[in-house]
Amino acid sequence: MGKLWEKGIKADEDIVSFTVGKDYILDQRLVKYDCYGSIAHAEMLNKIGILSNKEKDAIVGTLNEIINLSEEGDFKILPQDEDCHTKIENYLTEKLGKTGEKIHTARSRNDQVVTALRLYYKDELNKIKELAKNFLDSLRSLSDRYRDVKIPGFTHTRKAMVTNIKVWCDSFIEGLLDDMDMVNAVIYMIDQSPLGTGAGFGIPVLKIDRKFTQKMLHFERIQNNPIYVQNSRGKFEGEIVSVLSMIFFDINKFASDVIILSEDDIKIIAIPDKFTTGSSMMPQKKNPDVFEIARANYAKVVSLEMRLKMLPSNLISGYHRDLQLTKEAIFEAFDITENTLKTISKVMKELKINRKNAEKFVTEELSATQKAYELVEKGIPFREAYRIVAKNLSTPSHKTPS
Amino acid sequence: MGKLWEKGIKADEDIVSFTVGKDYILDQRLVKYDCYGSIAHAEMLNKIGILSNKEKDAIVGTLNEIINLSEEGDFKILPQDEDCHTKIENYLTEKLGKTGEKIHTARSRNDQVVTALRLYYKDELNKIKELAKNFLDSLRSLSDRYRDVKIPGFTHTRKAMVTNIKVWCDSFIEGLLDDMDMVNAVIYMIDQSPLGTGAGFGIPVLKIDRKFTQKMLHFERIQNNPIYVQNSRGKFEGEIVSVLSMIFFDINKFASDVIILSEDDIKIIAIPDKFTTGSSMMPQKKNPDVFEIARANYAKVVSLEMRLKMLPSNLISGYHRDLQLTKEAIFEAFDITENTLKTISKVMKELKINRKNAEKFVTEELSATQKAYELVEKGIPFREAYRIVAKNLSTPSHKTPS
Amino acid sequence: MGKLWEKGIKADEDIVSFTVGKDYILDQRLVKYDCYGSIAHAEMLNKIGILSNKEKDAIVGTLNEIINLSEEGDFKILPQDEDCHTKIENYLTEKLGKTGEKIHTARSRNDQVVTALRLYYKDELNKIKELAKNFLDSLRSLSDRYRDVKIPGFTHTRKAMVTNIKVWCDSFIEGLLDDMDMVNAVIYMIDQSPLGTGAGFGIPVLKIDRKFTQKMLHFERIQNNPIYVQNSRGKFEGEIVSVLSMIFFDINKFASDVIILSEDDIKIIAIPDKFTTGSSMMPQKKNPDVFEIARANYAKVVSLEMRLKMLPSNLISGYHRDLQLTKEAIFEAFDITENTLKTISKVMKELKINRKNAEKFVTEELSATQKAYELVEKGIPFREAYRIVAKNLSTPSHKTPS
Amino acid sequence: MGKLWEKGIKADEDIVSFTVGKDYILDQRLVKYDCYGSIAHAEMLNKIGILSNKEKDAIVGTLNEIINLSEEGDFKILPQDEDCHTKIENYLTEKLGKTGEKIHTARSRNDQVVTALRLYYKDELNKIKELAKNFLDSLRSLSDRYRDVKIPGFTHTRKAMVTNIKVWCDSFIEGLLDDMDMVNAVIYMIDQSPLGTGAGFGIPVLKIDRKFTQKMLHFERIQNNPIYVQNSRGKFEGEIVSVLSMIFFDINKFASDVIILSEDDIKIIAIPDKFTTGSSMMPQKKNPDVFEIARANYAKVVSLEMRLKMLPSNLISGYHRDLQLTKEAIFEAFDITENTLKTISKVMKELKINRKNAEKFVTEELSATQKAYELVEKGIPFREAYRIVAKNLSTPSHKTPS
Repeated sequence: MGKLWEKGIKADEDIVSFTVGKDYILDQRLVKYDCYGSIAHAEMLNKIGILSNKEKDAIVGTLNEIINLSEEGDFKILPQDEDCHTKIENYLTEKLGKTGEKIHTARSRNDQVVTALRLYYKDELNKIKELAKNFLDSLRSLSDRYRDVKIPGFTHTRKAMVTNIKVWCDSFIEGLLDDMDMVNAVIYMIDQSPLGTGAGFGIPVLKIDRKFTQKMLHFERIQNNPIYVQNSRGKFEGEIVSVLSMIFFDINKFASDVIILSEDDIKIIAIPDKFTTGSSMMPQKKNPDVFEIARANYAKVVSLEMRLKMLPSNLISGYHRDLQLTKEAIFEAFDITENTLKTISKVMKELKINRKNAEKFVTEELSATQKAYELVEKGIPFREAYRIVAKNLSTPSHKTPS
Repeated sequence: MGKLWEKGIKADEDIVSFTVGKDYILDQRLVKYDCYGSIAHAEMLNKIGILSNKEKDAIVGTLNEIINLSEEGDFKILPQDEDCHTKIENYLTEKLGKTGEKIHTARSRNDQVVTALRLYYKDELNKIKELAKNFLDSLRSLSDRYRDVKIPGFTHTRKAMVTNIKVWCDSFIEGLLDDMDMVNAVIYMIDQSPLGTGAGFGIPVLKIDRKFTQKMLHFERIQNNPIYVQNSRGKFEGEIVSVLSMIFFDINKFASDVIILSEDDIKIIAIPDKFTTGSSMMPQKKNPDVFEIARANYAKVVSLEMRLKMLPSNLISGYHRDLQLTKEAIFEAFDITENTLKTISKVMKELKINRKNAEKFVTEELSATQKAYELVEKGIPFREAYRIVAKNLSTPSHKTPS
Repeated sequence: MGKLWEKGIKADEDIVSFTVGKDYILDQRLVKYDCYGSIAHAEMLNKIGILSNKEKDAIVGTLNEIINLSEEGDFKILPQDEDCHTKIENYLTEKLGKTGEKIHTARSRNDQVVTALRLYYKDELNKIKELAKNFLDSLRSLSDRYRDVKIPGFTHTRKAMVTNIKVWCDSFIEGLLDDMDMVNAVIYMIDQSPLGTGAGFGIPVLKIDRKFTQKMLHFERIQNNPIYVQNSRGKFEGEIVSVLSMIFFDINKFASDVIILSEDDIKIIAIPDKFTTGSSMMPQKKNPDVFEIARANYAKVVSLEMRLKMLPSNLISGYHRDLQLTKEAIFEAFDITENTLKTISKVMKELKINRKNAEKFVTEELSATQKAYELVEKGIPFREAYRIVAKNLSTPSHKTPS
Repeated sequence: MGKLWEKGIKADEDIVSFTVGKDYILDQRLVKYDCYGSIAHAEMLNKIGILSNKEKDAIVGTLNEIINLSEEGDFKILPQDEDCHTKIENYLTEKLGKTGEKIHTARSRNDQVVTALRLYYKDELNKIKELAKNFLDSLRSLSDRYRDVKIPGFTHTRKAMVTNIKVWCDSFIEGLLDDMDMVNAVIYMIDQSPLGTGAGFGIPVLKIDRKFTQKMLHFERIQNNPIYVQNSRGKFEGEIVSVLSMIFFDINKFASDVIILSEDDIKIIAIPDKFTTGSSMMPQKKNPDVFEIARANYAKVVSLEMRLKMLPSNLISGYHRDLQLTKEAIFEAFDITENTLKTISKVMKELKINRKNAEKFVTEELSATQKAYELVEKGIPFREAYRIVAKNLSTPSHKTPS
């Protein structure tokens, strides 16, 4: 069994290993989706008369077998298999002979891989929506438990005015709801069936039925243009990861807040000991590593997005092998989004707010604005009220630390 | 007249100049939007009884006067004015005395600037939708004029299969339509009224009417959470520019294609001489500079997006002066998106396709796939047909350049 | 007078304006350097017999005239002049007729612009070294004034151990010294004369003397390869800005420290009022805007570096108009590096350290490691000493905020 | 055996797994370097009297044992081991009891990890220098074999003037030599011993000998400042990867050239079949995947650099767990630099230049500049010669493709 494109010349092993890269590992998670795509393709080939019922049944049966093997962890792609598509087709051909070979009629690896990827992306994005919902729930629960606890709000990293835990939690809830709108927007964008566009220029001669495979694979609509199918690689991935970076924008800010509010001299938020780590040299330290890693992942996701946007730049239309590198980037982005959401939600369930510490930290000068507005209510223009209050703050912001 | 926050201590001039940066120039385009926001705010203050009818009329009248001055180019912000908000308020106070001062009741520069920016963003995004429509029209027109001209499709920067001008044009049309969906998604996301959230923690004491200003400013809905209003700075900008980068992804590919297809040895696309530039040393050169600049702008927009995403990273909730730098980044992104769309659309109207050159360039081996499928139609499995055709290509890809 | 490459066909005005972009403004600062390059070139053409003494004197005289005009601000490049090279050559030709035209013998705008840019870069990098020296001086002076003041050192944004102002200042001094090593490394890298490489493929027929111009322009050595001269555009700029980003890495950290250490509840560092800004709504606020802008500029420089690295990606050898965009990026990077260094150095001269607040903030548990080592001195293995001290810290990190 | 910092509270498994991330895999390559660091540390502790000769010998012996195990692949770090430092110390303690525990006297994981990393970086950078030398050799060999073959030089992706294989090869040779200068500059920068700086604030009480460990570990000099040791994390890594990105800048351009010059209609460069890959649908295709992957890796390295520069932004001085993510980024950058250099060098040894195709592709108009200079030699000013040649080019750049 060989590469799908081998013509009798033996490829150099080092070069194959360099070009395959981590693909054989990354593709492990695509096996299932590639089988789904192939099943729909086989059914379609049967419908238009290229596969007999018997051939189709054999192929579909074997593909289902592969799905089962894969779910048990028994369908391992090895470096020499190159990728999941080759491995699956080789399995079909080994088992079914010429019948197995027929599956690649009227398709190219180019549309095949985009189909599998897109099915996978949709699943991951829906998983992320679920995980975000859990995070929202834990934010709501924290808010409910401590809604009335007053805490300082900051501007310029300085205490500014009085706010409270509910308002603070709500700021992330509203942020995540916006993110979910954008997740839905990218799901809609990518929800187009690429199957049937071949190598990027359609399938000549044969009369394939793209509507049939689109419906069977539950895509919202067909992606008509075969060139665009290839050109949208990198583009769709870039925008998906951009939206994931919005989620991480919020996580980054949330984590930054928690790290500050749980500092030893503030301790409004108490992170349970089992979620902290210590220092190998300083006996007293309890560190918020989990929030630091969550915070740091923002930089990772942004850099992955940037890679996706840079990779296809200045390249002409049509598939380029460069696009293979989009896989690792988006897979990594999905993984850390999911891991981070899961972990943060778990920790949040046990975060505690220390009322007493919060009270102490809400110092008097944070009410300066409120005092100014009380003067406004008495008819004094705000600008004048502002100056009166400013003057009366004996040592406006020179309060020595108590 | 001084800074809105001056308390009697004179600020160091160098430091003011450093922190103000280019703001006084950038803000020129915000004058109108800041006046809109202030008019709505004045009407609301009147409604809740803080401004009398007479005061409100004076303020609104003066703000309309500023809008007119600004449209005539007669409302210049100078470096010492710091930004448009200060300049406008100083103008009001100079003209109306204490009445002018009252406009800043129940608001902060923090919610004021976000309001002006968001109104401005919405206008720009709608302008971009119009310009994209023009680009779509010129793509459709090119497609109509030359729809049946066969050209080679490329994979791996090599001629691969036969396609045609219509399919090529359509690939960009479909791409832009996806982009417009995403433009609409970000417009929806940002279409939230921030006015009335003050410095990021709401307006204490006074009973303001946020619904009133939201309606008057034609925002789709209220952005409830005051902390989130400030935290969405950078986040919204980053996602807007991400979507602009999608448009540039398509422009980058279109320009890359045109540059290759208009090469001297291909010349399928003819760029009219008046749109090319020459070399100062090589008499024969006619260069596609306009497409090179269009292509290069993709890198500029991606880098601006990256800046927007990096700026607020690792900062806690609430306004930071760092966010001021988001203005320059998004303004630049709007400008080059608009300039590029305009210019490309203009050039496209006069692009010509050279049929004869296209024919010559569509060489025989590009039909290999088609031949394989003709064998498939006769019942031969594709894999076998592929090998038959591959063998019969006398010099598969070793065709000497003619 | 027209473009250097005009051949009788009138270029479209919109397209010229789009491709010229901001070049006519950016090039203002290159006038002097372009004249230096042209003077050396004229002397060389005289040496090899292409310019007579009289012609050479006329050209050099006029170029010196332009340098003087430019220094007085009287040599303004207008949009229709396209760039400084065209403007200068047109000036020469207007004044000297055919003699003026001869300056462009044996060169292309491609090597001409790289020559001017590189002379400019060297000047800017040396200016930055001077400014960094001032910053180092102000760090040393701060260190000297307060060397013995104990402050807490942080890990994980938590107080960790005791350190002092001197060690803190030294950390930035050592950082900047490393940066200066790298500045020197990039100066060495770019210190190669590109003049005489033409459009990227050398000067045919004529026997030019590249050594002569290299010496005259004080370049360290010749950049031999003409293709590499063009290919190094973007590459050299990217690495220069990478090194500037190292300086900003240090500034970003310094600013972040100052912002935290000058917080109202810590106030170890006192920023004089004249260097702070206030809030338009909160009477008590004094904000560290100057440090926030300095901090934020790191993101700007990193994004400019990224733009420079992305612009030429995937393009083949030789000049592309895309490279024009490298100018704006590196010019902006120089500007903010210089402005930021200047401003920070000025502010630092008046920063004050509040000993009393520092003392209060150096709480007891910061000596836990020291205590452990005191046990080690008595022969107890560190791991055991660590556990003893950890146990004895009654409420290890639950100290309520005082 | 537990974490180095455990104080009796059991850490949550999910949280440990999240924070550890891939560290246990990444650290596999650090085992050797961590042992080197620990051996030097043990010798120093012996020198200053903290370890007896017997204790020191036992520790050093066991560390050498670990190095041997590790080289045989028999020292596997498992997820529950957290990282190599814990695993190594646990091994020491299991084997040597209290004596093993003593190794962590007078150090922190913070200086320990930086020591191991820096030793590793130096090794990798030296390896890269070797691999770059091989690449240089293969460029020189290609140049020697085909030095006189004329090929077109391009500007604006259009044929411009005549050049040759030697000049083309030399452009990359000169580029790589500049890169090597910068590699040496970063090696010098990082060649500072961090050992003995503890958690970032030095080692209190004990009189350690940093000079001793510096010498023993072959560091060029000591990194004096303990805060700077921690602050240089991310900074050094960012600059190292920036320099690697310069190498990839050159590889990207080289690969881009090869991809174009080996196109079917040009075929000046012949890539041996065994280094190409085919299409699963188009029988005639032979694709330059190896050069596409090499080219694409530039985007990967730039994005990793960007991640390294973004990660520590806006964080105050001192270690943050965020910095752990710098490891994966720089390790990936080393890996693809080495793999790509190796692979490209191998392929280059068998690249062939097709003289006949090169000749055909060097068309007449490429000599226009030469002709103009021949007129200059006859005394005609270049600008006039240019116009004469331009006029005589019957169809300047409208040459139909032959």
